[in-house]
Amino acid sequence: MLVNGNAQRTIWLKKNDPLTIQIIDQRQLPHQFEIVDLKTVDEVAHAIKDMWIRGAPLIGGTAALGMYLACVEMQDKEDPESYYKLCLDKLWNTRPTAVNLHWAIERLDRVIQTSANPESKIEAARNEALMILEEDVEICRQIGENGLGLIEEIAAQKPGETINILTHCNAGWMATIDWGTATAPIYMAHDKGIPVHVWVDETRPRNQGARITAWELKQHGVPHTVIVDNAGGHLMQHGQVDLCIVGTDRTTYTGDVANKIGTYLKALAAWDNAIPFYVALPSTTIDWTMRDGIKEIPIETRNGKEVSHIRGWNKESEVIEEVRLTPDGSPAINYGFDVTPAKYVTALITERGVCKANEEGISSLFPEKVQQTT
Amino acid sequence: MLVNGNAQRTIWLKKNDPLTIQIIDQRQLPHQFEIVDLKTVDEVAHAIKDMWIRGAPLIGGTAALGMYLACVEMQDKEDPESYYKLCLDKLWNTRPTAVNLHWAIERLDRVIQTSANPESKIEAARNEALMILEEDVEICRQIGENGLGLIEEIAAQKPGETINILTHCNAGWMATIDWGTATAPIYMAHDKGIPVHVWVDETRPRNQGARITAWELKQHGVPHTVIVDNAGGHLMQHGQVDLCIVGTDRTTYTGDVANKIGTYLKALAAWDNAIPFYVALPSTTIDWTMRDGIKEIPIETRNGKEVSHIRGWNKESEVIEEVRLTPDGSPAINYGFDVTPAKYVTALITERGVCKANEEGISSLFPEKVQQTT
Repeated sequence: MLVNGNAQRTIWLKKNDPLTIQIIDQRQLPHQFEIVDLKTVDEVAHAIKDMWIRGAPLIGGTAALGMYLACVEMQDKEDPESYYKLCLDKLWNTRPTAVNLHWAIERLDRVIQTSANPESKIEAARNEALMILEEDVEICRQIGENGLGLIEEIAAQKPGETINILTHCNAGWMATIDWGTATAPIYMAHDKGIPVHVWVDETRPRNQGARITAWELKQHGVPHTVIVDNAGGHLMQHGQVDLCIVGTDRTTYTGDVANKIGTYLKALAAWDNAIPFYVALPSTTIDWTMRDGIKEIPIETRNGKEVSHIRGWNKESEVIEEVRLTPDGSPAINYGFDVTPAKYVTALITERGVCKANEEGISSLFPEKVQQTT
Repeated sequence: MLVNGNAQRTIWLKKNDPLTIQIIDQRQLPHQFEIVDLKTVDEVAHAIKDMWIRGAPLIGGTAALGMYLACVEMQDKEDPESYYKLCLDKLWNTRPTAVNLHWAIERLDRVIQTSANPESKIEAARNEALMILEEDVEICRQIGENGLGLIEEIAAQKPGETINILTHCNAGWMATIDWGTATAPIYMAHDKGIPVHVWVDETRPRNQGARITAWELKQHGVPHTVIVDNAGGHLMQHGQVDLCIVGTDRTTYTGDVANKIGTYLKALAAWDNAIPFYVALPSTTIDWTMRDGIKEIPIETRNGKEVSHIRGWNKESEVIEEVRLTPDGSPAINYGFDVTPAKYVTALITERGVCKANEEGISSLFPEKVQQTT
């Protein structure tokens, strides 16, 4: 997508220096746009752990390129095998709960283990990591095309009028390599000339909507308005939302959707006002072992300080500063996600197509997965 | 209620100096507790306009005491009548949409106009203003007693266990003179030894929950936890909420409830999880002219800067500072209230008792009002 008018991805190998990874430091967004060099496995691990980058697909892609650097670094070590193992562990333990992280590391490890010599290991690892990035771009592009049809249907019903889309959190290209998941259909509709406007839930406590989704959309030129998480219901009651599209961190094969805390409340409001509520996802986030999302999906409890304190741009001192919002000593609790029951999800938008958020719909698109689990 | 262990109200005449009004400067809460002297009508008008105090009942009480100061000040003026008229207009125009403000000013004006001489005007105005404060305390106390029964019913079903109550925004004693509306039953239950715990919605954008409700509860010793507005649905899905109690700014006689933006989303989640959702109100907030809340109640749109920027305590510089949360140039829109349809409200808690949130229920408690409107 565009940043300052130029096509940009979230991660890439530096031009004329293929031993350096470059990323956008997302901690500083939207206040500062900084591209950072990652030259060692240690730097890659640190960037994942400290959330310089985030979003499951991007975490996976970054770890994959970290594995490539591990192959480079192991070459001049006395005991290359132990060093390689050390690097793998270091990357593995950066974000223990991120599914894509371990998936990407295992995929790279297989390729590296089956390469005959150090030189071929490096080349094979680089190619595999870059392939993971390309595959992710392609999956997001397909989600975009499949979701675009849904936006076009609504646009056909109100020609010339703005299509208002509400989204929650950041399931944008900054969480992936390019396009994003929930945002892919929006970017495609915008690029095609359909007049879209996005209601951006700020998404407390970490404000990924206000910080990252708003920044993404602004950079790409997509009309948008930031709202507090409380406002979506009112907008829906007053005909100001044509559809909702959100992402997901995990979806049961029965269609229950775990996503950023607060998603469930928006789904209820959409249901109450007969507004379509879509969830965009790469099929890798479908959990083929879980039937009941509310009972089974574990919900991360994060530090209460993310609720009691907030970071933002201080105009006076021209730096990002943290302020406390709550009384000193009032406890705060911080659930990261909630689960939206399948009955409130109009449909899922996947790389293979759009389906109902239920076992039948999902298995019709992914019959081979159902066979694996039964 | 208690502040630093002492019984406290939000407004009073200074001890041994009945010409000075004292208030708590709510702009600084929860970071600083400051009592401010208001010695002139100008100071009173300024305090209302700049929201040193807020909440409809407290605005009314403050304006009433302002009218008393007007009677004092007019005495040594060349043209007392014109001066008095000037004061009335000044107070009247502080917050043009606050119903209680105009009601209190009109009530004081009637008493002042019917008093024979300057001395008796002052005394009559002071007595009437203090009576308005006492009446408000009494109404809140009655709401508290009526709502207490609902909490006691739930407590009887789970003896010894904590009763978890979710509230939104601040319908606490800081919005009234004492007790509050939504908080009155909670304070009474706590004072009676029922183990209550309050989930405090932070209530973006102005964070009246995180700032004021949390501060109130902490000062009075009521166990509470601050949550983001996104979290309530998740808590309700997991049996962590026994009941919700919120306030209201305006309620139609058919039971639709206008309250702080986001209230509707919590009502939907309560409904989806079969959790009682109560609205506490003095009957003065019932609008006897409106049938359809969503269509008829006007919703204030406030400055988008309340969404894009936030104030909090900077630990480094030890002052309250403002930081920007959104990309520079991303628009933000700021609706102050939303409307919860009556069907999602379990019951209304009024000073006369608890009733169903519909025309029949409301008119059974206030038959004389229905007669007036038909």
